[in-house]
Amino acid sequence: MENNLAKQQCEACHADAPKISDEELHQLLKEIPDWTPVVRDNIMMLEREYKFKNYKLAWAFANKVAELAEDEFHHPATLLEWGKVTVTWWTHAIKGLHKNDLICAAKTDKLL
Amino acid sequence: MENNLAKQQCEACHADAPKISDEELHQLLKEIPDWTPVVRDNIMMLEREYKFKNYKLAWAFANKVAELAEDEFHHPATLLEWGKVTVTWWTHAIKGLHKNDLICAAKTDKLL
Repeated sequence: MENNLAKQQCEACHADAPKISDEELHQLLKEIPDWTPVVRDNIMMLEREYKFKNYKLAWAFANKVAELAEDEFHHPATLLEWGKVTVTWWTHAIKGLHKNDLICAAKTDKLL
Repeated sequence: MENNLAKQQCEACHADAPKISDEELHQLLKEIPDWTPVVRDNIMMLEREYKFKNYKLAWAFANKVAELAEDEFHHPATLLEWGKVTVTWWTHAIKGLHKNDLICAAKTDKLL
């Protein structure tokens, strides 16, 4: 498995798209080791916290994430606080994780 | 009590600044009725969710909130999702609500 998640494209996702399997998730997480699977409201999500020296730097990063979201037409939850941005990816249509989310997580890391 | 919270200035806040009293909070919340006090990690915060028609509009509003935060040098948690922005004000230094937070909440409403 090469570290190529960030090179892949996020594809249109429908309610009948398959959730990622536990095995594939386990395998792909090795490429994005700073991301943590979290379960909220019974939905599996992928989350990472990025730290910054001040608000302006965190804000600038949050805007890059928003640009990525619009480019991919896949939209995470982005929490901006002083010196910190928390990004959470999941796929609303399937109430869980699709491979798209791991691709977008890898692309988020590339924005740093 | 006039509806003048938004006209007041957020002032520098230190660890020994007083938390807002329950009575003052109750009184001032009448000026910002869409804001809800929430307690998280034992800290009283003030939160409001704003809905938008799409991501771009929500994103634009989140940026206005960030500009306000820098102008006031008081920084909320701003959660950007598709069509939704959730803003949470509290004062880190006193682990609770200062009158500043209500002033900033009123100013956030003015950004709409």
